[in-house]
Amino acid sequence: MSNTNLKKLAEELGLSISSVSKALRDSYEISAETKKRVLAMAEKMNYQPNPFASSLRRKKSVTIAVVIPEIANNFFALALDGIQMVAQQKGYHLLTYLTHEDYKNEEATIRHLQGGRVDGVLISLCRDTESIHHLVSLHETGIPMVFFDRVPEQMDCPTVTTDDYESGFKATEHLINAGCKKIACLSLSNYLSITHKRMKGYEDALKKHAIKLDPKLVIQCNNDNENNLNLIKNMLSAKKDRPDGIFATVEKLAISTYYVCNDIKLKIPQQIKIISFSNLRTASLLSPSLSTITQPAFEIGKESASLLFRMIEKKTFGNRIDKIVLKSSLIERNSSK
Amino acid sequence: MSNTNLKKLAEELGLSISSVSKALRDSYEISAETKKRVLAMAEKMNYQPNPFASSLRRKKSVTIAVVIPEIANNFFALALDGIQMVAQQKGYHLLTYLTHEDYKNEEATIRHLQGGRVDGVLISLCRDTESIHHLVSLHETGIPMVFFDRVPEQMDCPTVTTDDYESGFKATEHLINAGCKKIACLSLSNYLSITHKRMKGYEDALKKHAIKLDPKLVIQCNNDNENNLNLIKNMLSAKKDRPDGIFATVEKLAISTYYVCNDIKLKIPQQIKIISFSNLRTASLLSPSLSTITQPAFEIGKESASLLFRMIEKKTFGNRIDKIVLKSSLIERNSSK
Repeated sequence: MSNTNLKKLAEELGLSISSVSKALRDSYEISAETKKRVLAMAEKMNYQPNPFASSLRRKKSVTIAVVIPEIANNFFALALDGIQMVAQQKGYHLLTYLTHEDYKNEEATIRHLQGGRVDGVLISLCRDTESIHHLVSLHETGIPMVFFDRVPEQMDCPTVTTDDYESGFKATEHLINAGCKKIACLSLSNYLSITHKRMKGYEDALKKHAIKLDPKLVIQCNNDNENNLNLIKNMLSAKKDRPDGIFATVEKLAISTYYVCNDIKLKIPQQIKIISFSNLRTASLLSPSLSTITQPAFEIGKESASLLFRMIEKKTFGNRIDKIVLKSSLIERNSSK
Repeated sequence: MSNTNLKKLAEELGLSISSVSKALRDSYEISAETKKRVLAMAEKMNYQPNPFASSLRRKKSVTIAVVIPEIANNFFALALDGIQMVAQQKGYHLLTYLTHEDYKNEEATIRHLQGGRVDGVLISLCRDTESIHHLVSLHETGIPMVFFDRVPEQMDCPTVTTDDYESGFKATEHLINAGCKKIACLSLSNYLSITHKRMKGYEDALKKHAIKLDPKLVIQCNNDNENNLNLIKNMLSAKKDRPDGIFATVEKLAISTYYVCNDIKLKIPQQIKIISFSNLRTASLLSPSLSTITQPAFEIGKESASLLFRMIEKKTFGNRIDKIVLKSSLIERNSSK
């Protein structure tokens, strides 16, 4: 806590605490001359108001929280950058919580935030969030909440997402147009709505082109890198029915696929073509360069935080729920040539 | 703020606020029976103690701050991951501030933190931090501070860094051993001690091998990507005295070099060899794979936070200043073959 508190400042000035406090809040009850004297002394003594006392008085924490699965991830790092930019412009502080894709962490964090530590919460769900009772419980406290990217399907809440169905469809159709007949789909979660939408796009693109979906080519990965490498290796090492195209719904699974292909000497794109959701800044420098569906991650963060502040500042109607959808872009590179 | 406060809880129980508060703090003044009744009602009403009132009472915020230049950066994202792990274990909250390599942002953030919002601060300086008066000022409030990676040279303070001089020396010697005679050095800052140390390692390696340092090959980049690309392109397009090796002191400058080489069709490693400080997870998948000096970024974050908590919990002596140095590793790949 700061060394100079209101009491010391008042003692030094020979004024009451209440007068000093009023002077600092520019109250009409205090003369201009006294205000000047108080401000000069406050600066001299390097006085900073106690933020917790201020928060108690104003019933505001001037802080928002962001709850995300991980940070060493290009998408979330860029989104956090966008969130932080808006928070800084608003003079707000940003508490960061990582769930590490673990539902128990997410639940404990959300439960804690019910205590009123923050004025608003931004959330992107972890991969195994099935139950939403913790989210409903936080919502009932009246704290403004905005979900981004990984949003709950079963809840009417403000969200910022991308066109996941269309992107899944376009990515798959892109591989079909490049000549693929057996397209595998790699996903990270059974529960997330973004996975459902991206996979529905994949399914519908196959249907449109009269390609039968092979359930063996729909691979459910998890948060264990070794496990994912093995699943992908098994699929790509098969003598029969080896896929000739891969649609990865998350970046890290495309990277795992590259490692496996290097390992078993499978040539991209000659023997297998790849496209992936990705915000990798080095996508064009990979060997071969990676075709991507690139989400506007920074803008997602920015829009989410802006929406949250409209709610905090009560600039939206109480009965209005904003659902903002931004467009991703398909960037064709050598991995799907 | 939470809907259920102490007052409502007391009303519902027919007790005084002070009795309820004492019961929740397990005071000996309250009977076991009453305590049980209070806890049951608190749970039923989903009561969460007001964190700001608790902070005022305990003179503790249960929060630490981390101030870093950027987050969409593999090194800082991994370091933040390590910091967050320790904070979570300690039951602490983490405020994240990005300076975007801007000294004014850093100064304003540090000044704000003097107000006592947090119990400790972790800092990695921005590239143009020359004056340290804001850091001295925060230090004088008595708030525990730990610097990591980008630490101030002029201040006696706890730090966690890597063996930057040795790494700069080894990286340069590695290029010399690979046959390079004209080695350029790319850096991001004039002020940071890590830059000075890495460049001193570069200079001393040249000296050891009797290679004269050419000042034209020491390129001072900045935070403007376009500017950096131009500087690198000018150097690599020169007909005369073109370097045959590049030592990049930060990852983003190696990536810029790859873009330039693609652009002007300069072959890595045949015409130019590259080694860079980097935590890029795709380093081995680049075309060609990138030789790196890899810092233990997650461990740096973990060690920094652990040291900060030892200071917060007063487990270190007041007159002791820890300076922890971790080792980086040189990983040879195709870009310097």
